[in-house]
Amino acid sequence: MSEAPYLTFDLDTPGVSRGHLVIPGGTDRGELSLPVFSLNKGEGPRLLVTGGNHGNELEGPIVARRLIKWLPEAQTCGRVIVLPVLNPLAVEAWSRNTPLDGLNLNRIFPGRADGSVTERIADAVSRVLLPMADTVFDLHSFGPTWDFPPAATTHPIADPDLMARTVRMAEAFKLPLTLVWQHNDTAGMFDITAQNQGKVFVCTEFGGGTVGADNLAIYEAGVRNAFIALGLIEGKAEYPTFRQQKSGQTLETRPSDELKSPAPGIFEPRCSVLDEVKQGDLVGILHPMDSLSAESIDIRAPETSIVLAVASGAHVEADKVVALVARPLKK
Amino acid sequence: MSEAPYLTFDLDTPGVSRGHLVIPGGTDRGELSLPVFSLNKGEGPRLLVTGGNHGNELEGPIVARRLIKWLPEAQTCGRVIVLPVLNPLAVEAWSRNTPLDGLNLNRIFPGRADGSVTERIADAVSRVLLPMADTVFDLHSFGPTWDFPPAATTHPIADPDLMARTVRMAEAFKLPLTLVWQHNDTAGMFDITAQNQGKVFVCTEFGGGTVGADNLAIYEAGVRNAFIALGLIEGKAEYPTFRQQKSGQTLETRPSDELKSPAPGIFEPRCSVLDEVKQGDLVGILHPMDSLSAESIDIRAPETSIVLAVASGAHVEADKVVALVARPLKK
Repeated sequence: MSEAPYLTFDLDTPGVSRGHLVIPGGTDRGELSLPVFSLNKGEGPRLLVTGGNHGNELEGPIVARRLIKWLPEAQTCGRVIVLPVLNPLAVEAWSRNTPLDGLNLNRIFPGRADGSVTERIADAVSRVLLPMADTVFDLHSFGPTWDFPPAATTHPIADPDLMARTVRMAEAFKLPLTLVWQHNDTAGMFDITAQNQGKVFVCTEFGGGTVGADNLAIYEAGVRNAFIALGLIEGKAEYPTFRQQKSGQTLETRPSDELKSPAPGIFEPRCSVLDEVKQGDLVGILHPMDSLSAESIDIRAPETSIVLAVASGAHVEADKVVALVARPLKK
Repeated sequence: MSEAPYLTFDLDTPGVSRGHLVIPGGTDRGELSLPVFSLNKGEGPRLLVTGGNHGNELEGPIVARRLIKWLPEAQTCGRVIVLPVLNPLAVEAWSRNTPLDGLNLNRIFPGRADGSVTERIADAVSRVLLPMADTVFDLHSFGPTWDFPPAATTHPIADPDLMARTVRMAEAFKLPLTLVWQHNDTAGMFDITAQNQGKVFVCTEFGGGTVGADNLAIYEAGVRNAFIALGLIEGKAEYPTFRQQKSGQTLETRPSDELKSPAPGIFEPRCSVLDEVKQGDLVGILHPMDSLSAESIDIRAPETSIVLAVASGAHVEADKVVALVARPLKK
């Protein structure tokens, strides 16, 4: 029989609390304590903010730390729980998955109490924190090998009412991109578990590469906008500036919108995220590296669309996704 | 007795040749063939251009591929050998070191014929290609967790004449930064082996994060400038534009210019590369993630200097370098 995960403090305590979510030990390692911040101002929205779900996406933990700094001055009602780093083992290793068990935390929700450490983290979050919130913001980035605009995303949700509320919440971030993302690898994601409990879940994404001041400011502004929309803080929501633009658009993308590498090689991007491309426009070039006689291969847009994500800086195998396009969401 | 590495074609053949540098097999794996391009226009400079020394620095291989495309039209004399990917095993794994033996190719030169695969690559390059060149350009990047301006770099060289020629060659790239980099981890680097043979060796660097069209254009322009300076091609060398600036500066940096993390955590940059900072200016903030009670720690410039490199997007242990500053080179 496993021990149960627990919080070291009472979430009902008024005002600011700091403590830990304790993940019981297992056969693979001992107990793990995740720092948790909570600010309880009584009646109102109940929000859970998480970062560090993947260990090489560190804008989320930085924005979560900033939040903890200004929230005590700003929050007027409700309860906010902030867990800046969901998976410290992956963060310390700058690794998407947990090195100890090789698992992707965002594919094994709701977790298992008697599983390996990643499954125990998911179990603790699902059982201890998730029931205390009606809305969840999980702060991701797109990782080091992709370029991606600052975005609030969701997957399609079967329940049309929850879907509509989720898209409205995502749009309230006022980030350059709101995205409904249909893909085939959603089993075990944190959002599925939360949505099954009727909660509004928004996953923020952006990238790529290094963490920069400009991108952090956009990310933080988006989170602040969402707090305003929820009524947790007062203020005026504003579109942050991204590449000289102050606006946002809502797009959808499907598995058929994935552009794939025709051969192994290095992908060189020839467009930028949020570029509009027409059928036949050059999106990038695949350079085979195993032969200098092999010509580099142009990868072109299959139809008029908007470039959503561009792979860069990595060698790809054949038939791997190197770019993703999208189109305006039909509501 | 090991087999000897060899080229599948004769470098003395006039005009364009394409073939492979064959690395003999060993106990760890079989033979490896690295694609090599050569363009022989007779008398003149003898240049070797290499990329993909580290597997997660892929701008070099892309620029090398571009070079192969325009060089046949442009080169007027001399001989250029291009090896776009020195370490295909690392490139395919998007890994700095070779996964098979864990070795950093740029720390085990001149290699060993009877060593593991990384040592055999170094041995083949040192014995087969290096003697055929008087000048070497090794095209690196700064990897995914650093921001670094486009730069042509060298380490300090004991021989003052070779040092002066190397700095002149590096400055001929006209990149935003020419850097003399003194650090304590140079044993086994490719440049040391080349310099010991009296060759001019320039290591280009830049970063970070994703591979983008703007940065590739700067990198390619720098290489082109250096080809013009060598007299291999005709044309006018021009400073590429980097952050609205069209100029270059020559700096030096020493081990004492490394700013280190005072604690484990996530480093948030608060300055940009090539910013001038005064003593006490904020360079970045270290956010401890193991406790939310621990205050974030400001990291400030120890003296007036120029920011050279900024870590970003990675969790760091205590006492790890998070930023590097520099000062104008005293010639």
